[in-house]
Amino acid sequence: MFENSQESKTNLSELGEFGLIDHLTKNFSPKLESTIKAIGDDAAVLNFENKQTIVSTDLLVEGVHFDLAYMPLKHLGYKAVMVNLSDIYAMNGTATQITVSIAVSNRFPVQALEELYAGIQLASKIYNVDVIGGDTTSSTSGLMISVTALGIAEKEDIVYRDGAKANDLLVLTGDLGAAYMGLQVLEREKEVFKANPNSQPDLDQYTYLIERQLKPEARKDIGPLLKDLEVKPTSMIDISDGLSSEIIHLCKKSKLGANIFEEKIPLDPAVISVCEEFEIDSTMIALSGGEDYELLFTISQDDYDKIKGNPHLTVIGHMTEENEGMHLVTRANQKLPLIARGWNSMENRED
Amino acid sequence: MFENSQESKTNLSELGEFGLIDHLTKNFSPKLESTIKAIGDDAAVLNFENKQTIVSTDLLVEGVHFDLAYMPLKHLGYKAVMVNLSDIYAMNGTATQITVSIAVSNRFPVQALEELYAGIQLASKIYNVDVIGGDTTSSTSGLMISVTALGIAEKEDIVYRDGAKANDLLVLTGDLGAAYMGLQVLEREKEVFKANPNSQPDLDQYTYLIERQLKPEARKDIGPLLKDLEVKPTSMIDISDGLSSEIIHLCKKSKLGANIFEEKIPLDPAVISVCEEFEIDSTMIALSGGEDYELLFTISQDDYDKIKGNPHLTVIGHMTEENEGMHLVTRANQKLPLIARGWNSMENRED
Repeated sequence: MFENSQESKTNLSELGEFGLIDHLTKNFSPKLESTIKAIGDDAAVLNFENKQTIVSTDLLVEGVHFDLAYMPLKHLGYKAVMVNLSDIYAMNGTATQITVSIAVSNRFPVQALEELYAGIQLASKIYNVDVIGGDTTSSTSGLMISVTALGIAEKEDIVYRDGAKANDLLVLTGDLGAAYMGLQVLEREKEVFKANPNSQPDLDQYTYLIERQLKPEARKDIGPLLKDLEVKPTSMIDISDGLSSEIIHLCKKSKLGANIFEEKIPLDPAVISVCEEFEIDSTMIALSGGEDYELLFTISQDDYDKIKGNPHLTVIGHMTEENEGMHLVTRANQKLPLIARGWNSMENRED
Repeated sequence: MFENSQESKTNLSELGEFGLIDHLTKNFSPKLESTIKAIGDDAAVLNFENKQTIVSTDLLVEGVHFDLAYMPLKHLGYKAVMVNLSDIYAMNGTATQITVSIAVSNRFPVQALEELYAGIQLASKIYNVDVIGGDTTSSTSGLMISVTALGIAEKEDIVYRDGAKANDLLVLTGDLGAAYMGLQVLEREKEVFKANPNSQPDLDQYTYLIERQLKPEARKDIGPLLKDLEVKPTSMIDISDGLSSEIIHLCKKSKLGANIFEEKIPLDPAVISVCEEFEIDSTMIALSGGEDYELLFTISQDDYDKIKGNPHLTVIGHMTEENEGMHLVTRANQKLPLIARGWNSMENRED
């Protein structure tokens, strides 16, 4: 699906700015009834009738958020869309439209941008969103992608970060840490390749990790699943910066504390084994790794029976009163305070 | 109003990404009834009831769209908002919300970003739009600003590019060419300053030109004015790339031709005199200069009496059948074909 077809090269200046936009977006035909006018006017026009509108925006910058040494452009386009849709799903909304703006240096041939847009188009097809606009401009260095996503929801369905109550259960979709460890594997292979360009890496055992890093999927399925289960979360957030940081956001916005249990944190076996290989604490990776694009939400304890045993959902802890603080309860039953850690401030836990 | 208060310097890394967003947006409190949730969740939530939603997005890149040698950051923030609001007004909509994302290198102290956001805040206050979200990230070089604007309109009020009819009048707001000539003056002063840092430029006679370049205003007033006059344009576009290019857009979308009359193109006296000084054809500047953020629209001839004599509006020509082509009729009554010219492809006219 994600083949590389970069054969011939056309210089960007051959097309010019208008030609480039037309060229890159010629296959983007709107599908949704709510898209009245997409690309081709001063602005797009949408008709959401009496639903509420949800808006989210994210920037991805070369050298900061991605490294083209191992990130194929088609994957990058796909991921740029996912990062934004994930925020719409974290509001319990339905993503409907996106705008995509890129700033790109002349070192990229037109075919590279076609790859990027092929990934954007694939994502918009699979996730049923229309690409309704954007801007394409030159940059003095590197590639930058700015995506704004729009979505809709009935007013009563929208879930904010601030609605959790003490004793609510903390529930997580999927598993954590794989995207971050996928990045570690790719970074290591890049160093190996630099040292020996003829080395043939065997990455089979890392497939899941690398896929989670290069081609994450936003949890479009969770909103409808919860609707089927007749559960409305009391608060929700997506995991872009690591579990720890997201729990802290929910606690602060809801003015609560939380306990999460180390033994409950869902990890894929591939994450456990690669963490052993890299000699990193897998719990720390789950807490601080980020880029998993899973959803973290709280539900009333009364709803526990409705979600119990669902393979997509794991209860990892519960909310407490604010003065109890935010803690990880370890397998050894120690209570460690949760700390928001940035991407680069990883340390080994001392316990 | 636009004073420079860059005194102390705080390194960006001292605040960190979350601290920076909180810091820069702490004064942005939403004012509009349609803004249900602004900054502080995964996404913003808006309630447009049964109005249609208008969405526009633009990227501004340092070294491509602006030069910080003469563009104060507060003006840049203001202008970044204007560029986007102009697109909403060009749909005959009311701008309501914006998202602002910036990528910025560490060479900028926090105080520089505060200046940038002060300009954004001033624009949002004057134009009555809420800042509802955004993203702040580091860049490997330079500054990049991505703004997405949302607006609303009743379905029947929205004006597209493709609704013009043959014989409709072409109407322009304000005057043209000043923003481009302001840029020429600033570029010249930059060279003078490089050659002699002690030179004291006297820019008084260029005030209007420089203001049009550094602090453009979007035509928020035109929609309500036309409503008062009971005129609904048949097509509309904003002047971001120069009159010639915008007329060509209207013609192509509406499948028509057009004649515009050189003697009708509104020019400020300051533009005429600076064009003489620079020995540039002022008509060429109006046609190709860009960044004026005026509105160009078409109206039925039946509506002529309603707009006649209005100081904001000038009839510059009329639409024709497509096969008649797109022409400038010169003062000497020559018919020259209109050509879309880019910012850098200015040539002296041979006539």
